[in-house]
Amino acid sequence: MILKEIANRRSVREFKDEPVSEEAIADIIRAGQFAPTAMSSHAVNFIVIQKQEIKEAIFKIIGQEFIRRAPVLIIPAIDTGKSILPVQDLSVATENMFLQATALGLGSVWKNLTDQWAKKVKTLLNIPNNFLIINILPFGRPAKPPVPHGDADFDIRKIHYENW
Amino acid sequence: MILKEIANRRSVREFKDEPVSEEAIADIIRAGQFAPTAMSSHAVNFIVIQKQEIKEAIFKIIGQEFIRRAPVLIIPAIDTGKSILPVQDLSVATENMFLQATALGLGSVWKNLTDQWAKKVKTLLNIPNNFLIINILPFGRPAKPPVPHGDADFDIRKIHYENW
Repeated sequence: MILKEIANRRSVREFKDEPVSEEAIADIIRAGQFAPTAMSSHAVNFIVIQKQEIKEAIFKIIGQEFIRRAPVLIIPAIDTGKSILPVQDLSVATENMFLQATALGLGSVWKNLTDQWAKKVKTLLNIPNNFLIINILPFGRPAKPPVPHGDADFDIRKIHYENW
Repeated sequence: MILKEIANRRSVREFKDEPVSEEAIADIIRAGQFAPTAMSSHAVNFIVIQKQEIKEAIFKIIGQEFIRRAPVLIIPAIDTGKSILPVQDLSVATENMFLQATALGLGSVWKNLTDQWAKKVKTLLNIPNNFLIINILPFGRPAKPPVPHGDADFDIRKIHYENW
């Protein structure tokens, strides 16, 4: 059996106008903190944004309607002085957050940040220079339920046995 | 509630001498394929290694006892001509594989590859030049059950509201 949340997790860019509970936010971040980190550095921090004025300020930098419409934005940030694989650590934390959100009936999407956007967002939010951010994650109840992954998305041609 | 597999997933480096079923291997890879990929490139491939002689050859390159003792090794490989965020795509696929393995009572660990090791492993396994590999994942039943993550691993000091 495939883990249900893995199949159900799809990118969601439109959200219902419903708040996300503080408990749900804590569970999503807990999932991110329970992700493996290189050499167990656990150097990932999380910025939680719910104020509309800050969402609007980020929207002005990177665009994307869901940035100002999602009930909550979370930005994982990693201390590059502590992590030896910062991009990997942020990526696996992000996936855990996606899966926990899915388990709670919420959706999200990886909004990737260019270096230029990341720099501006860091300045806006006062994120220390030694922290790296690579994405912004909007969370909310999906406007319409996404279609889960199914057998059609499983491609056995991409599996190689023993060697290529 | 936190997703059970996220809390139960811990790095496992010692495995029981028990085979991993083909069905379990397929489920782990399915989980990897259902991971999000940048621009939905789905450019991740998977090399499954069960032959002892190939494990021994990889062990000669990178060391680590679990490389030759794990029942199965899986190496995710990504087409860098198709993915715009290859390290991120490989990382989230890896985490999905870890979680699916956990759901099946199996364990794994992210064995990171230096550029030098990756080059040698690619040559050994005949992996095309345009594919990137960043890690090797051993899978098997844990020699002893790992301790799940709990509240002590949840650090609220790493959560920042609205800005840093």
